Amino acid sequence: MLIGIPSLLGPDLLSTLRAMGHGDELAIVDGNYPADEHGRRVLRADGHGVVDVIDAVLTVLPVDDFVPQALFCASVNGDPTKLDPVHHEMIAVCARRAPGMTVTPLAGAAFYERVRAAYAVVATSEPRLYGNFIVRKGVIRPLGRQGG
Amino acid sequence: MLIGIPSLLGPDLLSTLRAMGHGDELAIVDGNYPADEHGRRVLRADGHGVVDVIDAVLTVLPVDDFVPQALFCASVNGDPTKLDPVHHEMIAVCARRAPGMTVTPLAGAAFYERVRAAYAVVATSEPRLYGNFIVRKGVIRPLGRQGG
Repeated sequence: MLIGIPSLLGPDLLSTLRAMGHGDELAIVDGNYPADEHGRRVLRADGHGVVDVIDAVLTVLPVDDFVPQALFCASVNGDPTKLDPVHHEMIAVCARRAPGMTVTPLAGAAFYERVRAAYAVVATSEPRLYGNFIVRKGVIRPLGRQGG
Repeated sequence: MLIGIPSLLGPDLLSTLRAMGHGDELAIVDGNYPADEHGRRVLRADGHGVVDVIDAVLTVLPVDDFVPQALFCASVNGDPTKLDPVHHEMIAVCARRAPGMTVTPLAGAAFYERVRAAYAVVATSEPRLYGNFIVRKGVIRPLGRQGG
């Protein structure tokens, strides 16, 4: 346990978040997702729901504001116009942790492709279907410097 | 780079700090110290001075307040009554990051023994002799619970 860092971020996940650079993406997927097959690197967050993991990750991970879209969720039956409560919870936690950044729902194939390209995949135990999310890492600006 | 976490704490050091438990000790040693010989686990902080590393570590690592002594420094020629400027700088940074916790100077043999038993050793590039330090990890208490 460390000061100011959510306990859900264990040694491996914390190390991975720190090792990621600008533009690297992290997928956080539900308990049914084929994480080992799709993930270049896989970290386990067993017993945790996807929204709690997103919440913990976004306390320390900056979101990319150099691109128009940096937060993505899966969608129901691969239809980006259909969202379930789990997606609305993702949107709510992002609004709190990364104000002003929108969450873009992706169609199935586009989402899978993005997970396969991601720097790492966090396998949660989220029981709800389509409970998958991607965040693109941003930058920490030098103190006193703001803006893109 | 992560939000609120000093950049000097890289993936491996951050992971190590998170993996340590209550009572585990971390030695932060100068550039001349035989870190590989004494350390059970060794992490590199090349190019950094010992005081900067202590400062970064203590931003996230809680100090043990279950014991009377949890912060230790080496001393000049193994004489705990003799301190150099580097030790006074350690004491100053501890006063800022861990208010109320005192730094105990140790004789040479006692210090070496403690480094050998430590969970991990961080090898800095501190050029000043006797620029060695040990911190014992404390606990993060549940929210709303304070006191030992």
